[in-house]
Amino acid sequence: MDPQVRKQVLRKLTYGLYVAAAMDEFQAAADTVNWLSQASFQPPLVMMAVKKDSNLHALLECGAPVAINIPGADQKQLAESFFRPTQREGETLNGHRFRRGNTGAPILEAVPAALECRVAGSLPGGDHTIFALEVVDAHLHRDEPPLEMWDTGWFYGG
Amino acid sequence: MDPQVRKQVLRKLTYGLYVAAAMDEFQAAADTVNWLSQASFQPPLVMMAVKKDSNLHALLECGAPVAINIPGADQKQLAESFFRPTQREGETLNGHRFRRGNTGAPILEAVPAALECRVAGSLPGGDHTIFALEVVDAHLHRDEPPLEMWDTGWFYGG
Repeated sequence: MDPQVRKQVLRKLTYGLYVAAAMDEFQAAADTVNWLSQASFQPPLVMMAVKKDSNLHALLECGAPVAINIPGADQKQLAESFFRPTQREGETLNGHRFRRGNTGAPILEAVPAALECRVAGSLPGGDHTIFALEVVDAHLHRDEPPLEMWDTGWFYGG
Repeated sequence: MDPQVRKQVLRKLTYGLYVAAAMDEFQAAADTVNWLSQASFQPPLVMMAVKKDSNLHALLECGAPVAINIPGADQKQLAESFFRPTQREGETLNGHRFRRGNTGAPILEAVPAALECRVAGSLPGGDHTIFALEVVDAHLHRDEPPLEMWDTGWFYGG
């Protein structure tokens, strides 16, 4: 297999962009991710691949609930701000206000929609772990189209 | 949780459309799927959630290699033809010519790009199983933009 061709073909996959956010009493992690999809209707599950050496991974391994924040089409800058290490200051994460959802997971106030999830299982893959997440709550702040990876010029994959 | 809100929010997730195809000496299965994402760089893995009662699921459970065929932006009709039960006639699946890749998985001749994968693991979820698939070969027939779910007006999710 030609690794360059593999990279080109893997970059034909279509993605959204999401800010996956979790916190416990010691730390918070809010990372922009794209390796995420629904994985079941009943129960409602999503699957998300998370980098093994990340703080988000550590929190999920410990069973922290996680919010999948779904930025709107015009929120590329918001997504970009979560490429940086997570800094909590008061009720903000990397400068964006959040509230704790019913599970305690941090929901960004600016995003149009978010899911709250609990870890239902995991599959150790390669440099990322695949988490199966049960959707236990959902929030629709505004009915807007979401941010798509193709519209940003960014890639994560290949 | 309001199931209607959950459905609306889950339908904010962004997807591509792919024809996942596998065959053994007895049967072939080629299904249009969208619950698929890369899941690791090293080794290169994708994750795909597959309906439990499908022939594709049965083939993957038995370890059949699978091709992830990636239709081009103008191949909505090709994707639509794999909503139907799979019919093999000679070297065609639902009317579309295929060749066997290096793994033996069926690669549609009409699509611009395809991955060949082997099952590396699975996580029983709900009504779908999450398969971790190692990418073992990749084919780029033409460098074209892919078909995206948002462009079709279809939904699978919610």
